[in-house]
Amino acid sequence: MAEAQAAAGRRSRGGGGAARRAERTAVRIEAAKYIERNVPNFEILTQEALEIIEYNAETVLEEIGVAFVENPSALQRWREAGADVTGERVRIPRGLARKLCETAPSTIIQHARNPDRTVEIGGKSLVLAPVYGPPFVRDAEGGRRYATMEDFRNFVKLGYMSKWLHHSGGTVCEPTDVAVNKRHLDMLFAHMTLSDKPYMGSVTDPSRAADSVAMSKILFGDEFVDQNTVMTSLVNINSPLTFDNVMMGALEVYAQANQACIISPFIVGGAMAPVTVAGTLTQVLAEVLAGVAYSQIVRPGAPVIFGAFVTSIDMNSGAPTFGTPEAAHITYGAGQLARRMGLPYRSAGSFTGSKLPDAQAAYETANSLNMGLLSGVNFMLHSCGWLEGGLVASFEKFVMDADQLGVLHHLAQGVFMDENGQAMDAIREVGPGGHYLGCAHTQANFKEAFWRTQMLDYRPFEAWQEAGAPDTAALANARVKKLLADYQKPAIDPAVEEALAAFVAERKSSMPDAFS
Amino acid sequence: MAEAQAAAGRRSRGGGGAARRAERTAVRIEAAKYIERNVPNFEILTQEALEIIEYNAETVLEEIGVAFVENPSALQRWREAGADVTGERVRIPRGLARKLCETAPSTIIQHARNPDRTVEIGGKSLVLAPVYGPPFVRDAEGGRRYATMEDFRNFVKLGYMSKWLHHSGGTVCEPTDVAVNKRHLDMLFAHMTLSDKPYMGSVTDPSRAADSVAMSKILFGDEFVDQNTVMTSLVNINSPLTFDNVMMGALEVYAQANQACIISPFIVGGAMAPVTVAGTLTQVLAEVLAGVAYSQIVRPGAPVIFGAFVTSIDMNSGAPTFGTPEAAHITYGAGQLARRMGLPYRSAGSFTGSKLPDAQAAYETANSLNMGLLSGVNFMLHSCGWLEGGLVASFEKFVMDADQLGVLHHLAQGVFMDENGQAMDAIREVGPGGHYLGCAHTQANFKEAFWRTQMLDYRPFEAWQEAGAPDTAALANARVKKLLADYQKPAIDPAVEEALAAFVAERKSSMPDAFS
Repeated sequence: MAEAQAAAGRRSRGGGGAARRAERTAVRIEAAKYIERNVPNFEILTQEALEIIEYNAETVLEEIGVAFVENPSALQRWREAGADVTGERVRIPRGLARKLCETAPSTIIQHARNPDRTVEIGGKSLVLAPVYGPPFVRDAEGGRRYATMEDFRNFVKLGYMSKWLHHSGGTVCEPTDVAVNKRHLDMLFAHMTLSDKPYMGSVTDPSRAADSVAMSKILFGDEFVDQNTVMTSLVNINSPLTFDNVMMGALEVYAQANQACIISPFIVGGAMAPVTVAGTLTQVLAEVLAGVAYSQIVRPGAPVIFGAFVTSIDMNSGAPTFGTPEAAHITYGAGQLARRMGLPYRSAGSFTGSKLPDAQAAYETANSLNMGLLSGVNFMLHSCGWLEGGLVASFEKFVMDADQLGVLHHLAQGVFMDENGQAMDAIREVGPGGHYLGCAHTQANFKEAFWRTQMLDYRPFEAWQEAGAPDTAALANARVKKLLADYQKPAIDPAVEEALAAFVAERKSSMPDAFS
Repeated sequence: MAEAQAAAGRRSRGGGGAARRAERTAVRIEAAKYIERNVPNFEILTQEALEIIEYNAETVLEEIGVAFVENPSALQRWREAGADVTGERVRIPRGLARKLCETAPSTIIQHARNPDRTVEIGGKSLVLAPVYGPPFVRDAEGGRRYATMEDFRNFVKLGYMSKWLHHSGGTVCEPTDVAVNKRHLDMLFAHMTLSDKPYMGSVTDPSRAADSVAMSKILFGDEFVDQNTVMTSLVNINSPLTFDNVMMGALEVYAQANQACIISPFIVGGAMAPVTVAGTLTQVLAEVLAGVAYSQIVRPGAPVIFGAFVTSIDMNSGAPTFGTPEAAHITYGAGQLARRMGLPYRSAGSFTGSKLPDAQAAYETANSLNMGLLSGVNFMLHSCGWLEGGLVASFEKFVMDADQLGVLHHLAQGVFMDENGQAMDAIREVGPGGHYLGCAHTQANFKEAFWRTQMLDYRPFEAWQEAGAPDTAALANARVKKLLADYQKPAIDPAVEEALAAFVAERKSSMPDAFS
């Protein structure tokens, strides 16, 4: 509880009388500190199994190799590092990739413009970030529709208002009403001005990664960005074993700028990786070893995260499936492999294949969130709002999932074993047949003892029925509306905001709209 | 996979031409073997924490003691065993209870009338049984209403048809249209004749426990029941620290008949136990030590299970809450305590406070099911169908949860590390940029590789929309109807069924209806 409260109760601030008036009427924004686990990780693989997978991954790198596509300078770098390069195929001698990975830091401090929101990614930490990438949004009123910049801003606002969310994320949805070559500018501007939590940079083109660095320098100052990590960006590997030039171009920009990247295989098991868990883990490890090694060739010491996005597949329909036991096995196992590399680990999320924020969505999401906590994930992208296999960002599910993230915070606290935790005085006071509701120990502890939902329904049946018998999605819809109505922008230096706006305007006017 | 299939594909059998015709048209009933875990347990408490809790529990027994209410023979037994008895308070010298518990077996074989359905409770096993006790039922058509014997029979049928459910359970709902003093007879008759899975006996009065033993002797034969365990029954402790004469009376009957009891504190944290996790675990352990010790005083070697039913409470409304992190801590910790006693462990279930089979229900249920698997539970009562804090048995949620129980089966298999699991040939065959859908390894493994839902929706958005955009509850409603329409009674010796019916009729006519 203490960790959640240390950073809690902050609200937006500004200068002068208007700010004081605003403060008096301000909605209280609570923000929990990132999770620091006080519970063990769940270790599904034996020592022997881990060694087999590690040996096999090195065999994959040595015998089969990886492809760096349309990227002559990467091939040249690999040659100089000691790999065997034939065409675009890079074969890496046994042990070389792991050796190169050693310069990557085990923990990353990602700074937020509000220092209280700065996060640590690695070790026992767990940083929660929202859904990333959906082209569609869904809410109760509008149904399923293409996402717009207005939707994007609303998700950033919800993220800012969500107590258990530590990170503003990146492409919380794709704003399809803005040109592809310009939308990153509007997205970054929204994260930077509508929230004060840390954010992700653009990866869809190296020039957009450069824009992300440039805007961050306006927000944080040139020197601060040179010396600190202020972005964590998502670099996907085209599994199996392929590194495309766009993603690698973005990685190169960020590594050179000392900004963090998640190097993440994107795997639908049975399609982009073998249909077995051990086989998939082998390929994931080979891919991450190659990707992280490349980042360290570009800049030794560049901050990187071991990523694993893994789903299974419904072999009847070919549809990806979520919250499945096979995905859990892979997530647990990849966490062990990441820890043995000494790298921060990204996996899990509010995954589901359901089209609605219904029971299927919640089963699959809870399966995935629980395994994320226990598998030692340090950075959980997609931790709220994911729907329909990632095609849809759901407003209702965003706040539903965000509430469940509080469960993870309390789970991670572990069991308090001090005298107050042991509660022997309470047991003595109450005795056989009594009850604890009124006893001194309960009175002293009840406010902090239990996790409290901000949206689930605990009312008696009759009260709930009188209130219209709402299901979870209906309660969530009301909560979305209230949060957006209550939203107040966090204070920002007006000169900084103007400079950001000017940069966005200048970059937009420098090129015609492109939609690919 | 192998374990699930060993027992799969069975169907009802009978003799003669009618049976052969029935067999040709029979609906295929799949039944998975009980889970044998090939994954570690999650151990949240350190060795030091466990020792503190064990020491404190002995202190509770020694200094505070437990109450055995309106049960002079129990007090006499405790006196003879060496306890300090004052009034109804039994103070147990440090170490005595644990010493008495040593005669309890670590594993229980509970026989079913179909030997393929016999279960092992203890060690690495997990046996799944349905919801127990709700006075109400709910389905989409009828809404929430008092449960009847017809509802009861339908739940038994659904349990029989559920692949991942190993146990028919007990009071799957309270048949409120039958007199309280007679309904146990109808309930047992339904379990014995409509299913061939193992079942639970009545505990609401010692005479009803005796009826349960008598009916079991008709079904299995006198000698078989004397020598084997054919019932597992639920004996609740009135927490804090109180053992009432009704439940203890049932325990005495079952222990003397060598039938298994779950000895289970029933705890809403903050009301019946301290508001802290360590304090609750201390009280739970003290209660189970006293209850199990008592069972062993009654009959050394009587089969018993360490039970822990634990929820937290919403301190604003007083409502019990489910799927919470505090309940998870207690469930994990109690599993460790049970293993240190060498006893089978009962906890977890499809718990939720929601009034509908909606997202809240599924989040809370999935949280609880996952922790149940990882906390080493051997017998999971309430594993499907629970709704509204246990007030309601939901038809839709029964089949929704029962489907998720398949996830637990696959999770428990662990990771296959043989050559086929390693899949190096597949990685070599496919190589960078290829795909695995058509490769030989995928073709050879895809049928068994992934858990498959029997009811969640993986269709593409357009196909799902054309089908009326059903949510999970709607899909579940259709599945309930199909299962009940497809249901065929498992074969039973007509003479046995007649004898059971005659016993029920005789017992019913021997007493007037009572409704308390």
